[in-house]
Amino acid sequence: MPQVSLEHLHDLAQRALARAGAHAEMAAATARALVYADAHGLSSHGVARVPQYALHLRNGRADGSARPEIAAAKGGAVLIDAGSGLAFAACALAVHEAIGRARDLGVAYVGVTNSHHFGAAGYHLEAVGAAGLVGMAFGNSPAAMPAAGGSRAIFGTDPIAAIFPRPRAAPLLIDLSLSEVARGKLMIAAKEGKSIPLGWALDKEGKPTTDPNAGLEGSMLPMGGAKGAMLALIVELLVTALTGAAIGFEATSFFVEEGNRPRLGQAFLVIDPMALSGRAVYDERIETLLAAMTEDPAVRLPGARRHALAAKAAEGGVAIPAALHRELVELAG
Amino acid sequence: MPQVSLEHLHDLAQRALARAGAHAEMAAATARALVYADAHGLSSHGVARVPQYALHLRNGRADGSARPEIAAAKGGAVLIDAGSGLAFAACALAVHEAIGRARDLGVAYVGVTNSHHFGAAGYHLEAVGAAGLVGMAFGNSPAAMPAAGGSRAIFGTDPIAAIFPRPRAAPLLIDLSLSEVARGKLMIAAKEGKSIPLGWALDKEGKPTTDPNAGLEGSMLPMGGAKGAMLALIVELLVTALTGAAIGFEATSFFVEEGNRPRLGQAFLVIDPMALSGRAVYDERIETLLAAMTEDPAVRLPGARRHALAAKAAEGGVAIPAALHRELVELAG
Repeated sequence: MPQVSLEHLHDLAQRALARAGAHAEMAAATARALVYADAHGLSSHGVARVPQYALHLRNGRADGSARPEIAAAKGGAVLIDAGSGLAFAACALAVHEAIGRARDLGVAYVGVTNSHHFGAAGYHLEAVGAAGLVGMAFGNSPAAMPAAGGSRAIFGTDPIAAIFPRPRAAPLLIDLSLSEVARGKLMIAAKEGKSIPLGWALDKEGKPTTDPNAGLEGSMLPMGGAKGAMLALIVELLVTALTGAAIGFEATSFFVEEGNRPRLGQAFLVIDPMALSGRAVYDERIETLLAAMTEDPAVRLPGARRHALAAKAAEGGVAIPAALHRELVELAG
Repeated sequence: MPQVSLEHLHDLAQRALARAGAHAEMAAATARALVYADAHGLSSHGVARVPQYALHLRNGRADGSARPEIAAAKGGAVLIDAGSGLAFAACALAVHEAIGRARDLGVAYVGVTNSHHFGAAGYHLEAVGAAGLVGMAFGNSPAAMPAAGGSRAIFGTDPIAAIFPRPRAAPLLIDLSLSEVARGKLMIAAKEGKSIPLGWALDKEGKPTTDPNAGLEGSMLPMGGAKGAMLALIVELLVTALTGAAIGFEATSFFVEEGNRPRLGQAFLVIDPMALSGRAVYDERIETLLAAMTEDPAVRLPGARRHALAAKAAEGGVAIPAALHRELVELAG
């Protein structure tokens, strides 16, 4: 696999998206998020998505001319309308609003409606951590998981992320999807022609499968069984009932050419420790907890691997599959 | 098992707690919460806890004279100090503050510090749902689960609950702990001399066990493996770093006589749909989602069983073990 610099990757992604119809700000915001994911070892949410996003911009599933707007605002609560554009500029506006309002009012909850795939959920929280604030991110995605006991996919894999700033270290970043594994892992396995372990997915008849393509046509298993399905229900409601966005089962898969505007939802919760326990107490508590965890040499803090990879990628770039690189070069024109 | 009315149970619990040193308001708030749990089929968080709470009031692990106070407040963010009293009056104040501030500012986050066992997390959210608002509750508990990869219990079983009001039905209430099963289930099995399935708990050497007593001395397994442990880390930080409360591993088990004031933390997030999508959109979205779920006859909505049990209990009371009833009568004096 060719090793490429992050700058090169960003340039390719931005040009490919702009050429497919995204306005300059949308293309730049999207390229930034995708390259971040590649740098952090999350290639299923990286520039591998550019061909898909470009296709959506071309076939109308995403609107390259959309500019995010504030649709409602009261105190610490804001609703952003992404206008069916790609999600990243809308999420950046949402996070910007959430940070400002949390500083003024201690807490903010900003929802995004009429949105699209928002990539690595944790990416959006980096600005929250840098501002010294605590944040959570929620999002839904096209139906992938059944409700507890059910056989039809209703919920997306519905990521939850959280960021907690630390006094003398990079913020603690936690980022997980509510499926046993991320759907992107099936996508990668399918592209690479590899099989998947049992327990990741069901085929369309509801049977366990080791075939990633059968899994992509079927449904993903939620983490933790019925409890994982309940958490997905919470996330779906947080990002649809509170925003007006489409529910997982209403959005067509990202991985088919023909489909609707997904109109997905996201939400960002931001809390200012200064309004509650205060900085000194906050700092002492988080460091005490993380120190207790890492006393056990077998425990690694969430995000530690990502941080290390990102530092390495900033120096030496990342390796991407040759076929993807060729496709990006072609799309960038 | 004798069948007793909820009024009788409330009266016994209230008198037992008052006799152990709880002031009238604390005893009443606690009895209300415990009887609610019994009525909703959650006996591990019901009046079976009265002997334990009474013991804590007597041996100083809980302060029966404590009155919850607002320790900090800014906009939608409030910190309540429970003063090491039983948790229920402090949580009621927290929820009251959260409802009022969410109505004014769209969103509120209220933490509680220096607290105690807060019982069934969903109980506290009933007032939020009745006010037409969306709510979430988080709490920690004495260390029960290791971090991912670790062998020492760091996190509590750390419940997450959520409530979503519905236009023509009781609010949807979701309530789960982040362990594979609730610790209370081991307690019940131990009392009844029953074994537990593999996969619920590890013994103190970190080996899988079917003995509930060995499990209570060891650690609980998080739901969904490493992802469940990450969710527990999020909950611990939300209720300790933001409040100053003790981390799971700092609080002595509730199930030992000698121990510290647990100084646990709770937090309540309340969001007003009117500040975001608005009532009509909110109502349509939640009903569309729940209708899609229940189209599949195998799917039951979370909380449905609890609602049915509570309606039955309000009519005919609940059955409680004869030994527990005798103990309550004795404690009530």
